[in-house]
Amino acid sequence: MTGTPTGNRMRREWTRGPVLGAWCTIGSPGAVELMADCGYDFLILDCQHGEFGVTELEPMLRAFGGTEVTPTVRVPHNDYFAIGHALDAGAQTIIVPMVETREQAERAARAVRYQPDGARSWAVTRAARALGSDPAAVNEQVALLLMIETATGLENAAEIASVPGVDGIFVGPADLALTMGLQPGVTAPAAGVEDALDKIAGICAEHGIVAGLAGGAEYARHGFRVLTVGNDRALLAAGRAKVDEARAAAPSTG
Amino acid sequence: MTGTPTGNRMRREWTRGPVLGAWCTIGSPGAVELMADCGYDFLILDCQHGEFGVTELEPMLRAFGGTEVTPTVRVPHNDYFAIGHALDAGAQTIIVPMVETREQAERAARAVRYQPDGARSWAVTRAARALGSDPAAVNEQVALLLMIETATGLENAAEIASVPGVDGIFVGPADLALTMGLQPGVTAPAAGVEDALDKIAGICAEHGIVAGLAGGAEYARHGFRVLTVGNDRALLAAGRAKVDEARAAAPSTG
Amino acid sequence: MTGTPTGNRMRREWTRGPVLGAWCTIGSPGAVELMADCGYDFLILDCQHGEFGVTELEPMLRAFGGTEVTPTVRVPHNDYFAIGHALDAGAQTIIVPMVETREQAERAARAVRYQPDGARSWAVTRAARALGSDPAAVNEQVALLLMIETATGLENAAEIASVPGVDGIFVGPADLALTMGLQPGVTAPAAGVEDALDKIAGICAEHGIVAGLAGGAEYARHGFRVLTVGNDRALLAAGRAKVDEARAAAPSTG
Amino acid sequence: MTGTPTGNRMRREWTRGPVLGAWCTIGSPGAVELMADCGYDFLILDCQHGEFGVTELEPMLRAFGGTEVTPTVRVPHNDYFAIGHALDAGAQTIIVPMVETREQAERAARAVRYQPDGARSWAVTRAARALGSDPAAVNEQVALLLMIETATGLENAAEIASVPGVDGIFVGPADLALTMGLQPGVTAPAAGVEDALDKIAGICAEHGIVAGLAGGAEYARHGFRVLTVGNDRALLAAGRAKVDEARAAAPSTG
Amino acid sequence: MTGTPTGNRMRREWTRGPVLGAWCTIGSPGAVELMADCGYDFLILDCQHGEFGVTELEPMLRAFGGTEVTPTVRVPHNDYFAIGHALDAGAQTIIVPMVETREQAERAARAVRYQPDGARSWAVTRAARALGSDPAAVNEQVALLLMIETATGLENAAEIASVPGVDGIFVGPADLALTMGLQPGVTAPAAGVEDALDKIAGICAEHGIVAGLAGGAEYARHGFRVLTVGNDRALLAAGRAKVDEARAAAPSTG
Amino acid sequence: MTGTPTGNRMRREWTRGPVLGAWCTIGSPGAVELMADCGYDFLILDCQHGEFGVTELEPMLRAFGGTEVTPTVRVPHNDYFAIGHALDAGAQTIIVPMVETREQAERAARAVRYQPDGARSWAVTRAARALGSDPAAVNEQVALLLMIETATGLENAAEIASVPGVDGIFVGPADLALTMGLQPGVTAPAAGVEDALDKIAGICAEHGIVAGLAGGAEYARHGFRVLTVGNDRALLAAGRAKVDEARAAAPSTG
Repeated sequence: MTGTPTGNRMRREWTRGPVLGAWCTIGSPGAVELMADCGYDFLILDCQHGEFGVTELEPMLRAFGGTEVTPTVRVPHNDYFAIGHALDAGAQTIIVPMVETREQAERAARAVRYQPDGARSWAVTRAARALGSDPAAVNEQVALLLMIETATGLENAAEIASVPGVDGIFVGPADLALTMGLQPGVTAPAAGVEDALDKIAGICAEHGIVAGLAGGAEYARHGFRVLTVGNDRALLAAGRAKVDEARAAAPSTG
Repeated sequence: MTGTPTGNRMRREWTRGPVLGAWCTIGSPGAVELMADCGYDFLILDCQHGEFGVTELEPMLRAFGGTEVTPTVRVPHNDYFAIGHALDAGAQTIIVPMVETREQAERAARAVRYQPDGARSWAVTRAARALGSDPAAVNEQVALLLMIETATGLENAAEIASVPGVDGIFVGPADLALTMGLQPGVTAPAAGVEDALDKIAGICAEHGIVAGLAGGAEYARHGFRVLTVGNDRALLAAGRAKVDEARAAAPSTG
Repeated sequence: MTGTPTGNRMRREWTRGPVLGAWCTIGSPGAVELMADCGYDFLILDCQHGEFGVTELEPMLRAFGGTEVTPTVRVPHNDYFAIGHALDAGAQTIIVPMVETREQAERAARAVRYQPDGARSWAVTRAARALGSDPAAVNEQVALLLMIETATGLENAAEIASVPGVDGIFVGPADLALTMGLQPGVTAPAAGVEDALDKIAGICAEHGIVAGLAGGAEYARHGFRVLTVGNDRALLAAGRAKVDEARAAAPSTG
Repeated sequence: MTGTPTGNRMRREWTRGPVLGAWCTIGSPGAVELMADCGYDFLILDCQHGEFGVTELEPMLRAFGGTEVTPTVRVPHNDYFAIGHALDAGAQTIIVPMVETREQAERAARAVRYQPDGARSWAVTRAARALGSDPAAVNEQVALLLMIETATGLENAAEIASVPGVDGIFVGPADLALTMGLQPGVTAPAAGVEDALDKIAGICAEHGIVAGLAGGAEYARHGFRVLTVGNDRALLAAGRAKVDEARAAAPSTG
Repeated sequence: MTGTPTGNRMRREWTRGPVLGAWCTIGSPGAVELMADCGYDFLILDCQHGEFGVTELEPMLRAFGGTEVTPTVRVPHNDYFAIGHALDAGAQTIIVPMVETREQAERAARAVRYQPDGARSWAVTRAARALGSDPAAVNEQVALLLMIETATGLENAAEIASVPGVDGIFVGPADLALTMGLQPGVTAPAAGVEDALDKIAGICAEHGIVAGLAGGAEYARHGFRVLTVGNDRALLAAGRAKVDEARAAAPSTG
Repeated sequence: MTGTPTGNRMRREWTRGPVLGAWCTIGSPGAVELMADCGYDFLILDCQHGEFGVTELEPMLRAFGGTEVTPTVRVPHNDYFAIGHALDAGAQTIIVPMVETREQAERAARAVRYQPDGARSWAVTRAARALGSDPAAVNEQVALLLMIETATGLENAAEIASVPGVDGIFVGPADLALTMGLQPGVTAPAAGVEDALDKIAGICAEHGIVAGLAGGAEYARHGFRVLTVGNDRALLAAGRAKVDEARAAAPSTG
C-alpha cells in the first residue's frame, strides 16, 4: 500500500450516528465488489451462514480496495483461530455469533486484540495494509461486536456488555425469536422481541458501547446504531418479481 | 442422471410464445443458483462480457440441476472449440456474438451440430445427462442463436438468417447503436434502433426462425420471442437504492 | 427451486430396507456428479478424511441436483458450526465421527435441529431448496448418524443410542479395530470386530434407531441398513488393474 | 527442481514398444494423482472434451511430480498460444485434435518447438523443471502427435505425416467414424474403421513416426504404439456395477 | 466505486519520463498484492507465459484496489475476445505479443477501442470502476503496446508504429534474439540486439509513440520509457541465495 | 506412486545438524513450487497466519513432488481434526502454535500418531504416497514440534518437553516478546528474549528432543537445529528495493 493506514471508518462513524450495512453470503469477490459499490458503510462477510469460511476471505476482502466500506466479518463461532485469521486477512470489525455468557465474551475479547489488551497472535499479514502492524495502534482500530441471539444471552446481556474490549452488542432477532418460542421473522424481527431489543439497547447505552441489529433503519429510533439493510441473496432473489412482472407484460404473439 | 433426457425446454416453448431470461455475468455458482430459482425460462451464462470463460462453466451449469431453466451460454467468440466446450459442459442453447456474414453463420452452425448437420466433435461428456449422446437426437435439441449487433450484420441479416442450422437471430442493441453512431442505451435499446429491430424481426419471421433481443418484455409486440429482463449485476446494484432509502429513514439519534 | 421440497429420501427408505451409498473423498464436483449418476441411495461427502472442508461443500452438493441421491456429509468433528454449515449448504444426513460419550451425542443432536429439539442457528440458506425453511418441518427431515469407532464408544453405545435426536449409529470398523489392538482392514472390517458389530446392531434395534456400517451389502444380514459399497479413490485406483491387463495383452511389436 | 532434467520418457519408450496411457477429463488434481499412481506410461489431460482449459493445467500437472508418468496434453484446438501455454505449464507431449491438412500440421509444428525448428515463444517457466530451458535441448524432448479423425484428414494422412516436427499420428476413431457416416463406438473403435487404421499405421511406419490410437492394447498388433486404456469417467462410472451387485446381495431385513 | 474514475496513470506518466514495472506470472492475487505494494508504476499480468488466462484476471486485478499501480495485461495472443475480456476485467494498458505486420497492428487496435476508433464490444463491466463507461472517455484512457520480438516484426517496425491507436512498441528481447539466431538472455537482453533496440526507439520517437522494453532502467538512456525491473518468479527464486548463505553460516553443532 | 515410501527426511537430518527452512504464507501452489526449488530442507505451510486453511493444503503439498523438501505444516490451532487433516493431505512434520501446558502437549501428541502412540483416525489417504499406510511405520516417520511463544509456555517448557510423542520445541520469538511486554521483532528475535531461547534449547537437550526457532542460521550456535530463513512475503517485498534502485538509475530522458 502506498499511503497511510486509514483505520476503521465504521467505528469512527457510529459515534456520530447510525451506520448502515448489508450481509454478503455468496462466496464471490465479484458479488462483494458490486455490493461494495452501493454505498453501504460496512459489509458483513458472513462465515456463519454464508458459503465460505475464514480461510476463504482474502479474495473477498480485496474487493473492498479503494472503497470506504469497512470490511466486517461474522466469524462462524467464538474461536481464537477463526477470529485471528479473519483479522489477519483484513477484517476490521469482528462479529461473534451466539454469545451467552461473560466467559464467552472474555474469550472473544482476548482473540481480537494483542497484548496487553488480549492475546492475539502477532504476524505481518495483509491486515497491515489498512491498520499498520504496531500492536497498540491496531488494538485501537479493530472493533468487536458480540451477538446476543438466545434467551440465555439476553439474560446475561449486562454481564456481557461489561467485559473490557467488547465494543458493542449486535442482536440476531431470528435466532432470538426461536429461543423465545417464536417463529423467526424472515424480513423483519418477529413480533414479541421488541422488549428484548429495547432492553439490549438500554444496556449498551449504560455501558457506553454501541448497539447493533440485523434489522433495518427504522430501529435507529430504538437506539441501534449498527444496522443492516438487506443481503445479497435477497437482492438476487428480486429477479423473481422482475420476471413475474415481465411475464405479465409479454403479450401472446401467437 | 437416472431418468430420461429432458431436452431443451426453451426451444420447445418459444414456438408457443415469448420466453424470458436473464444474464449471468458473476462467475459464482451460488449466484447462478439464486437466479435459477427466480422462474426465468432460461439464463444466459455470458462468456463474452462476464467474469468467466467456457472452461469455467461446469460449476455454474450444475446450479441448473433440478430446475426447468434452460442453460444457455453466450460464447466469447465464434469459435469451434469454444462452442464445443460449452455444449460438452451442458449448455443447450448457444448464443454467438458479433456475427456479420453468411460465412460466419455457417462456421457457427458447423460447430453446434454433429455430422451430418455439422462437424462438432463427439465424446461422452456431461451434456449426455440432459440430452443423451445419440448424435442425431442431440442435434434436434440444441439451439443456435446468432447475434446481430453491427451495421454490417444488419445489412447481411437476411443471408445470415437463411443459413441451415441457425435457429434464431438475437439482437444486441447496445453494440448495434454504437456502430450506428449512437450511444449505447444502458437500460433499454437506444432511440434510433427501432427500425433495425423491426427489420430483423421481419427477416426472422420470413425465414421461420425465432427473433430474440437483449431487451424487455415490451418487445414481444415487435415479434421478439426470446427476451431478457435484467442481469445479476443490476440486481445487486439495486442495493444502492435500498441503502439510500434506509439512510433517509435513519433518524439522527445524537 | 421450482417445486415442493422433496425431503430426505434416504431416511424414508431405511425404514423399509437397506440403503446403499459410497464415499466421496476427491474434492471435485465433476467426480461427485459421476458418482451421483451411479444409482447409490446416498453419497457421503467426507470432510474428515477427504480433500475438502465444510465450507467447500456447496459446489459438490450442487452435483446432486436433479438426482434422487441423498446428500450426506461426514463432518470433520463434533462441532456446532461444522454441522450447521453442512446443513445450511444442503446436507440432509449428518455423520459425526468418533463419538464416545452420551454428552458428545447430546452435543451433536443440539447442533442438528432447531428449537425446541436442538439449538441450530436459523437462516434462509441453500438448504431451503430441498427441505424448506420451516424449523419444525426441517427438523423432521434431517438425520443424524453417530459413529462409534473406538473401544470407549463401544462401551458407551447404549447410552449414546438413547439420546433423543440420534437417528442411528454408524460403525467405523477400521478405527474400531485399531483401538482394539487390531490392524485396520482396508477392504473389509478386520476379523475380530464382528462381536462389536453385532452388539451395536442389537443396541440400535433395541432403541429403534438405524444401524449403519462402513462396509458392504453382506452386513445387511447383521441388521445394518445403512451400508457403503466403495469410494471414489478405489474406483480410480482400479485403473491399475486395467493397465496391468493391457500391458499383458500388448504384444511386442519390435 | 534440484536434480537433472529427466526428459520425456514416453517418447524414449515408444521406440522400444507400445506405451499405454489413459485420459483425464475431470479437472481435479486429486483425481489425476490417483491416476498417476496406477502405472500408466502417460496420462492425457484432455483440454478438448475435459472440464478444463490450458490455463488450468498447472495444478493437474503438479500431480505428476515424483512419478514416471509423462504429462501429455490434448490441446483444445490447433492454436499457437494454447500449445505454448500447455508446454510452458509442463506438458511434454502435445496432441492436437482435428488435423486435416499439411498446412495445419505445419502450424502445429511451428508452435511446439523453438527456433530454428519452429517459432515457440521462449521464457523461463515451470517447464524448465523437467526439460531445462536450453531451446535446442527442449526441442529434442517434446513430442507432437497430430490427430486424424475426419475423412479429410484420412485422405491427407501421408502429407500430414511428412511434415518435419510431427512425431506421430494419433487416431480418434469416434469422430472418424462419424465423418464416415458411422456411429461413434463408445467402448471400442466402430466396425468399418479398421481399414483406415491400417492405412494410417502404414503411413506412419513409412515416414518413421509413431502411430497412436484412442483404443486399447489389442491394437498394438496393428502397429500402434501409443495406446489408451480407459479414462477417469469410465472408472468412476464403474460404481454403477458395484452398487447393482451390492443391491442384489443385500437381503431384505424386514 | 464511490468516487471519480481515476484514469490510466501509467500513460500520463510516460509522457514525463520512464515508468517502471514488473511481471506477474504466478496466478495468485496475494502475490500480486504484495507486488502492488512495492511501488512499481505498473504491473504486467502475463497471460502469455504466466499461469493464468484472461478469464482468470479479475481476482488478480482486485489486488490493485487502493494503489496507484496501473493494471496492465499481456494478452496471450492478438485476439479480439482476449483483449476485450482483459479490458472488461479492468486492465488499462494492453500488451500484445508477437506482432509482425501492419495488418496485425490494425487488428489489435480495433479490439482495444470502441467506435469510432475501433470495434470493441460495449457493456457495463468492472472496467467502469476506474475508467467510467462513456465510450469516448474510455478510448482516451486505455493504452495499447505492441510487442516486436521477431526479425519480421523488426523489419516492419515502422509500418506497425504508424497504425492509429498504437500507443507504443514494447520490445521482447529474448524472442527477438532467438529469431536472430542468438541465445535468449535470461537476465538481460542478449548481446547482438542493441542495434535493433536503437532502431525501434528511433522509430517510436519519429512516430510520437512510446518505446518499451522487457529490460531494466539502464535502457532509459536508449530512449525507452516503459521498462520492467524483474518478476515474481525471480523474486521468489532469490530464496536460493538466502538458504545458501544461511547454510554457510550454520555451524555444525555436533 | 511408483517406488518405496521415502520417509521424513527433515527428522533424519536434524539428528546430524541444523536443518533450514522457510515459511509459505501465500496460498499459491506455484509460489510453493518456486520455493521448493530453492534448496530448503523443509517448507512450512502456515495455516495460522497464512492465507489458507488445512483443507486447502493438498494443491500446495503437490508442489513438493519430486523434490527432497519435507512438507511441514503449522496447523492453525491445537485441534485433533486440523492435525489429522494436514497429515492425511501429506504433511510429515506438524508444528502446533501457542502450546502452554502439559495437557495441551498431550492433546497434540494424541492427534499426531495412531494407536497405540496416539488416537489419530486411520484411513487410506494421500499421505500413504510418501509414508505408506502401516500405522506403526507412519508413527515412526511423522514429527511433532510444539511452539512455545508465551510467558506461560516458557514457564511450563520442561513439562511440555517431557510429553511422549513430542519431537521438539519450536520457539516463536515475536509472540513470546509480546507476552513478555516487548515489541515483536520483524526481522529478528527481539532483544530480551535471548535468555528464554537459551533456556528452551537447554530443556530440549536435556529431554533429547530437537530445538527449533523462527529465526536464522546464527541461532544454530545456541543449539537450535530447526531454523527458518525467511518467507515468501519477504521475498516478494524485496521488489521494493529493486524498483527503488532502478528508479535511481533511470535517468530523465526529457
